[in-house]
Amino acid sequence: MIIDCHGHYTTAPKALEQWRNRQIAGIADPVLMPAVSELKISDDELRESIESNQLRLMKERGSDLTIFSPRASFMAHHIGDFNVSSTWAAICNELCHRVAQLFPEHFVGAAMLPQSPGVDPRTSIAEMEKCVREYGFVGINLNPDPSGGHWTSPPLSDRHWYPVYEKMVEYDIPAMIHVSTSCNACFHTTGAHYLNADTTAFMQCLTSDLFQDFPTLKFLIPHGGGAVPYHWGRFRGLAQEMKKPLLKDHLLNNIFFDTCVYHQPGIDLLSKVIPVDNILFASEMIGAVRGIDPETGHYYDDTRRYIENTPYLNAETRQQIFEGNARRVFPRLDAALKQKGL
Amino acid sequence: MIIDCHGHYTTAPKALEQWRNRQIAGIADPVLMPAVSELKISDDELRESIESNQLRLMKERGSDLTIFSPRASFMAHHIGDFNVSSTWAAICNELCHRVAQLFPEHFVGAAMLPQSPGVDPRTSIAEMEKCVREYGFVGINLNPDPSGGHWTSPPLSDRHWYPVYEKMVEYDIPAMIHVSTSCNACFHTTGAHYLNADTTAFMQCLTSDLFQDFPTLKFLIPHGGGAVPYHWGRFRGLAQEMKKPLLKDHLLNNIFFDTCVYHQPGIDLLSKVIPVDNILFASEMIGAVRGIDPETGHYYDDTRRYIENTPYLNAETRQQIFEGNARRVFPRLDAALKQKGL
Repeated sequence: MIIDCHGHYTTAPKALEQWRNRQIAGIADPVLMPAVSELKISDDELRESIESNQLRLMKERGSDLTIFSPRASFMAHHIGDFNVSSTWAAICNELCHRVAQLFPEHFVGAAMLPQSPGVDPRTSIAEMEKCVREYGFVGINLNPDPSGGHWTSPPLSDRHWYPVYEKMVEYDIPAMIHVSTSCNACFHTTGAHYLNADTTAFMQCLTSDLFQDFPTLKFLIPHGGGAVPYHWGRFRGLAQEMKKPLLKDHLLNNIFFDTCVYHQPGIDLLSKVIPVDNILFASEMIGAVRGIDPETGHYYDDTRRYIENTPYLNAETRQQIFEGNARRVFPRLDAALKQKGL
Repeated sequence: MIIDCHGHYTTAPKALEQWRNRQIAGIADPVLMPAVSELKISDDELRESIESNQLRLMKERGSDLTIFSPRASFMAHHIGDFNVSSTWAAICNELCHRVAQLFPEHFVGAAMLPQSPGVDPRTSIAEMEKCVREYGFVGINLNPDPSGGHWTSPPLSDRHWYPVYEKMVEYDIPAMIHVSTSCNACFHTTGAHYLNADTTAFMQCLTSDLFQDFPTLKFLIPHGGGAVPYHWGRFRGLAQEMKKPLLKDHLLNNIFFDTCVYHQPGIDLLSKVIPVDNILFASEMIGAVRGIDPETGHYYDDTRRYIENTPYLNAETRQQIFEGNARRVFPRLDAALKQKGL
């Protein structure tokens, strides 16, 4: 089985975006604020949006199951207050839940949280509980910068975040550390802010002893870990100067990287440098980079090809990346699959 | 000849830091503000600080000439106002100038600028002019985020920066795009902020048409380009979605990467992915990562070894990276060397 641990519902019916635009207008003028019940998307519309997009590509590319969460760039936690984010998160998570119900063999949910800058992360827990208990979601996306590029929250190692971690540990679910749209003109969302956040999150963990407080906490750092594997020597050296343990012991029981790196040399480096136990297959399609690479004739984000072609993996390690590691990092997914005899 | 294009005066005599601390104290209480004349560092002290550190390692590692600028993390443009930065930049640049005079075969200067958050970059030009005309400096370090991790300045593509670019073009000097200390708790200075800034600067250029306005402007992006080469496919794909020309044509006549990547697989990727014309040798020693890699027994920042060992270069391309490209990107350095018959 091939599990893609990083997919967002980027192809939701237009009605969703229209409702969101009305919600944003309603922040300035409450008269314009739409009711949740005004958003109507039928199962047929959901089915169509998935069958013609993600599911079609999953079949073409040979992946079986996608861990599916709301569109990352649309989380936009910086917009409005906690109530705005809360309503928006509930809507987006419910849509992913419906997709997972419509295609139970192919999609399983991961939750966005109703974060809001300056608001205690504890307020996200109710949505998290609902998604895990009622929807059967297997993970969450945690935004380390709900301000959208102004980085006004404390680092991930701060006790500020501990209530979320306590709940994650209780439920045994990992968090993908994933920012959303940048509203800082310095940072292009998918070309800078996403990658910077990945690097930043890793370094926040490196400089701290977070995983001594939470030995079973698991973070999945997307986009191949930002700059981290490319600068693995730098990070090993920085940890050494700080008298931290080897990264293997200090971080790699808790931190994992996905394979959203859109060219062969990048995946070659990732699979050479990072222990195979810490790499999870992902493509983030249909996402930031949707085109066909003229140098290969294949989609940039068809990351399975790179994994098949890298000389640093064999059949066994490839299978770990495609399936085994995801089942280990997402124990609720593993349990759900086992229940189905998979 | 082997030219290291990225060295900072990280080993300046303690008197410099002591003077700076007094200057910082003087921001809060003007009575404490020291006069420039109170900083006294003798030539012998300078000589000693270089001979026992950078020059010793250059000889051990076989590099000949370092493009030498003030310590990056000490620029700290966020501290105080323009006058504070201006005095501090003048002091630091003068010290680098004195080092270059003491060791003319081994060091040539590059200037830090007296930037200050919210202040027109035009105010940096006088220091730049002095450093080029009087000191014979061959480049500058431009900080895209003088706020120190809050990213409050416009992107590098904004006209805000154009006065600096006009002067750079006039003098035919490149800028290394280099941030300083982060005062944002989210960003570790050398483990996150530096690498993020590299990626951010590249993406700011990618999304703009800056180099149409300045076809001869040259940016050197340090630390191996941050996350950029590792995600080269992502950047190619993003440019393609934006209908930009191929990166080769869109950016690579103007953007160059150094080799401050502290392990073999990183340099392998860099030299495989980025055209050889766009790579300049550098080590940034004695800098962020000063230890010995237990996996190799050699210093992490002894980057020459990685370049010698990578299978993606030959004698000719190696020489380009060691010398030829630096002479092309720093024309004033080339002219100075030629004048010496080198």
